[in-house]
Amino acid sequence: MQGDTLLIKSGGEAALTEWQHHFARLMPGLRVYGWDDPFVDARSVKYALVYQPDHGRLADYPKLRLILSAAAGVDHILADPALPANVPIVRMMTDETRERMSDYVTWAALSILRDMPVLVAAQRDGEWASAHTGRLARDTRVSVLGLGELGRAVATRMRAHGFQVNGWARTPKSLDGVTVFAGEAQRNAMLAETDILINLLPDTPATRGILDRTLFARLPTGASLIQVGRGAHLDRQALLDALDSGRLRSAVLDVFDIEPLPPDDALRRHPKIVITPHIASTVSYAARARQVANVLGAHLRGAPLPFVYDATRGY
Amino acid sequence: MQGDTLLIKSGGEAALTEWQHHFARLMPGLRVYGWDDPFVDARSVKYALVYQPDHGRLADYPKLRLILSAAAGVDHILADPALPANVPIVRMMTDETRERMSDYVTWAALSILRDMPVLVAAQRDGEWASAHTGRLARDTRVSVLGLGELGRAVATRMRAHGFQVNGWARTPKSLDGVTVFAGEAQRNAMLAETDILINLLPDTPATRGILDRTLFARLPTGASLIQVGRGAHLDRQALLDALDSGRLRSAVLDVFDIEPLPPDDALRRHPKIVITPHIASTVSYAARARQVANVLGAHLRGAPLPFVYDATRGY
Repeated sequence: MQGDTLLIKSGGEAALTEWQHHFARLMPGLRVYGWDDPFVDARSVKYALVYQPDHGRLADYPKLRLILSAAAGVDHILADPALPANVPIVRMMTDETRERMSDYVTWAALSILRDMPVLVAAQRDGEWASAHTGRLARDTRVSVLGLGELGRAVATRMRAHGFQVNGWARTPKSLDGVTVFAGEAQRNAMLAETDILINLLPDTPATRGILDRTLFARLPTGASLIQVGRGAHLDRQALLDALDSGRLRSAVLDVFDIEPLPPDDALRRHPKIVITPHIASTVSYAARARQVANVLGAHLRGAPLPFVYDATRGY
Repeated sequence: MQGDTLLIKSGGEAALTEWQHHFARLMPGLRVYGWDDPFVDARSVKYALVYQPDHGRLADYPKLRLILSAAAGVDHILADPALPANVPIVRMMTDETRERMSDYVTWAALSILRDMPVLVAAQRDGEWASAHTGRLARDTRVSVLGLGELGRAVATRMRAHGFQVNGWARTPKSLDGVTVFAGEAQRNAMLAETDILINLLPDTPATRGILDRTLFARLPTGASLIQVGRGAHLDRQALLDALDSGRLRSAVLDVFDIEPLPPDDALRRHPKIVITPHIASTVSYAARARQVANVLGAHLRGAPLPFVYDATRGY
């Protein structure tokens, strides 16, 4: 490793200092440079840790061995039309990612049970909405669409909290206390048994636009949505229509097709929508640096790498 | 029981129909009348289920055997200066009360972790506060002040959610996974180890005004408050000052000294306060009617009554 270079595009200049601080301790022999550093020798770059890399740039490094995503998804890397083939892409997944996402989704689900938009409006407008008592977690069916790393963590946490938990995956899985539905054939059956739908699918050609009119029509009237997958999953007009018609009761959205979401965006202004700025599972630099060190360590030992993107699965 | 009368003051005229519906099924022999019904024979009234009974009225019933509170607290009954002596007062406590309070406090704590007031303002003002990531439940110390029925339920639920949980009671207790502090001597030690303080104390002369400057000064700078006890516990000016000085970071308040909270109240307008209209543990009529039937059943069998108010303890 001595003398190998890790090139970083994640968080900008200010963050680079923090990344370097962590790697100096975790992997003292590693040279760590920022994405726009003019003094990097392209032939020394073996590793790239990136979020939304400029298209074409990763192809400039002939000895690149690993691309590490700075986020859980990899769509921001796959968007590069000149992405070098045969360089493994590793997703960012840490224990902190799972914890933070589980905290967020529990918060979002409890906010939906208590109709948080109504409470916020009542506080603002000087009203006393005491008839507005909400419903119990134990009487509420939450359904997790996607049982990957995050979906499993979220389902388990919500079970611990007392919710009735369903989960859907492409292939059959087993998860303690969770009713698992598998494959296209069973997806509609799960949707029909859902009070709160939690989207944690990966972004693949098969899942793009999946949160559409057809899907919303499969949910019971008055169901709610928690959108923590990818912006591309959501047909935004279908959501607005479903909320306006009363088919859906409310939605908590953390990811969007356009980020930052414009100030006058209709999603931001809708009275039944709570939006947050893509913070559901933002992970600390410290935790991500530890995970990168784990992955590079495995690579150097020739051990199997965790969380490698698989093009045939699409995640 | 045949011919005994239950007099109800809880929820007004509309609710009376619902109470009668439930008791007709649960205790068919019981006669159920509303508080202002002119045809009630005062000598037939053996039971009164009340919230904020008019002062002096309970003394009008010479054969009154039990006073049942329609809420968890009994302060609204004790306020009657003519309250008949030696008639047991039974607090309202149901499984649903515990569940609902646990749901609410978890929501409030997760809202504090994510700085919900900041997120609400950002949505309203068209901002994208993506640097605003918040902290993890597992790195957060919550301290429950009061380990009665609700305090124990809340502490257990928050433990299941991954929080680090402390609890304080007047006398030593044991609770799985919870660090218990006991007695006046240990209270300050717990406050010093607190990121989020949850008030679930009963209203007694010893606890009135307990959330004051002195107590806030014992908390680490940047701690937050969840107030689900009684309005009388809080020194409201001390809270406003602590938030303005930065000693406290935020507060979620569900109970107030004056309810409904006036539209222009300073607590409602403060940017670091989330208020809800005393709904944390509002329980359905169905669940409360079941519990009343349990209590009356025990009374008729001569069995010990659950949740009887004890004047020497003060709750």
